[in-house]
Amino acid sequence: MATLIAPSNHSPQEDAEALRKSFEGWGTDENTIIAILGHRTVHQRQQIRRAYEEIYQEDLVKRLESEIKGDFEKAVYRWILEPADRDAILANVAIKSGKNYNVIVEIATINSPEELLAVRRAYLHRYKHSLEEDLAAHTTGPLRQLLVGLVTSFRYVGDEINPKLAQNEAEILHDAVKEKKSSYEEAIRVLTTRSKTQLVATFNRYREIHGGSISKKLVDEGSDDFEKALHTTIRSINDHFKYYEKVVRNAIKKVGTDEDALTRVVVSRAEKDLKTVSEVYYKRNSVLLEHAIAKEISGDYKKFLLTLLGKED
Amino acid sequence: MATLIAPSNHSPQEDAEALRKSFEGWGTDENTIIAILGHRTVHQRQQIRRAYEEIYQEDLVKRLESEIKGDFEKAVYRWILEPADRDAILANVAIKSGKNYNVIVEIATINSPEELLAVRRAYLHRYKHSLEEDLAAHTTGPLRQLLVGLVTSFRYVGDEINPKLAQNEAEILHDAVKEKKSSYEEAIRVLTTRSKTQLVATFNRYREIHGGSISKKLVDEGSDDFEKALHTTIRSINDHFKYYEKVVRNAIKKVGTDEDALTRVVVSRAEKDLKTVSEVYYKRNSVLLEHAIAKEISGDYKKFLLTLLGKED
Repeated sequence: MATLIAPSNHSPQEDAEALRKSFEGWGTDENTIIAILGHRTVHQRQQIRRAYEEIYQEDLVKRLESEIKGDFEKAVYRWILEPADRDAILANVAIKSGKNYNVIVEIATINSPEELLAVRRAYLHRYKHSLEEDLAAHTTGPLRQLLVGLVTSFRYVGDEINPKLAQNEAEILHDAVKEKKSSYEEAIRVLTTRSKTQLVATFNRYREIHGGSISKKLVDEGSDDFEKALHTTIRSINDHFKYYEKVVRNAIKKVGTDEDALTRVVVSRAEKDLKTVSEVYYKRNSVLLEHAIAKEISGDYKKFLLTLLGKED
Repeated sequence: MATLIAPSNHSPQEDAEALRKSFEGWGTDENTIIAILGHRTVHQRQQIRRAYEEIYQEDLVKRLESEIKGDFEKAVYRWILEPADRDAILANVAIKSGKNYNVIVEIATINSPEELLAVRRAYLHRYKHSLEEDLAAHTTGPLRQLLVGLVTSFRYVGDEINPKLAQNEAEILHDAVKEKKSSYEEAIRVLTTRSKTQLVATFNRYREIHGGSISKKLVDEGSDDFEKALHTTIRSINDHFKYYEKVVRNAIKKVGTDEDALTRVVVSRAEKDLKTVSEVYYKRNSVLLEHAIAKEISGDYKKFLLTLLGKED
């Protein structure tokens, strides 16, 4: 379930006008920005962008960039974009930075096949290269095989499970973890092509046979970029709520807080299933997610994230 | 240019009724089947299928299968389907037969990125597996990397060329041809991710530097499945008219004729660019394509293919 609270009817024109007013005079009225944009669905936000452009002949996104700054700006900027476009940017940043491949894995595994296609389209449109083209040019070896395989996948979506396949492929994954490099190729094939339902069955079979989850086994073993990406792949496919819970937990646990990761999870999931992630967080930590976040950040950034988390004004 | 001759207006109901009549009585009236289906666009053929289903509560494709046979039936069956669905079937047959990977390469490289996506959708719908899933499960090593990379690509379409990249990647391809296996990985990356325009620039650069086309070099060298697929990839991206000309030439040159290949080219291209393929054929062989084909095949199959080739009744 989503945490976003948005009115069923709003006037894009009035919203655009209120935003314009918040930019005028001495300083910017951040509260208005939060009160409006923090309570609008993706469709409503695009309507506001169009209305603003029509009335003021100006790009709202560009104007916002010049009005606000820091983590608040980054969060508003990520939020105002359409999800596919946002993911395209996140993927591009991750590729160029040469680290944080878990963002690529998230985008490729947690989005539905059609959503992932939309990200690839948005990426092509924005960068005039394909996502896999840039990714393949910046990586090598098994890491490239895994990441390119994940972002180019168009998996079957359905409940059908082949138990025999789950059994065989649990062993393929086991071999890959045990013997490492030598048998990664088959493990990559399995993880990049099978349906998620089938893969969850395979992970379950692994646990039954080997008495322990495969992702735990992987953590014990390795820590290079490829193994990290492999680990993220398995965890995000297996249970993306738990996966996000841990991303958020690590982000706020860090000395200095990892704002990028925190913003990414809140902004990406507020309209989808952040409530579920929040429930998993509470169950795991006996602290409300909004309280934990509120303790670590401040100012307009904090107000904005808490609004997306469903805090009543 | 297409060779198909189709009327701009037709009545799907009347067509359905005429087809039904051709099935009744003693034997089937093949001439009517050819006269109708051999002169209808993909859209018109789908309208006829729907009209037939509505009037007779029967699947036209199934009925045709029971009425006609042999190469004629196969050609009509391939022709009546929507292109994406037809390619999905061709790909599945190629995967299951474990040879003829050139069909996979054709589908992946000659279709536009959006057409290729449509094939992947059709494949998922028909087989409840993804195309790359079945392909990866039936292949290994560099052949798998190449084929899966090709079918999952979503290339940038545009005229922009990066000459420096063309230069560098011409050398990558050169190394791959020269040193073989060891450097295939980079060559596969280049061939499966760059835009076709960029790749043609790279092939041209290769010719300038090394004085000879890369596909010729590849033929000299190898002949295992992977190298054949690599060769087909380069040829079909470089100039698919020339590529198809050769497929047809080989198909009719063979003792016994390769009807599958012949049908595939005629049926797949009649509505797109078979006229251009035919012109390339004439230039190369000084024989009209329709005459060359007419000499090798017979009966209703011959009548049907020649109709698709634009022969006036």
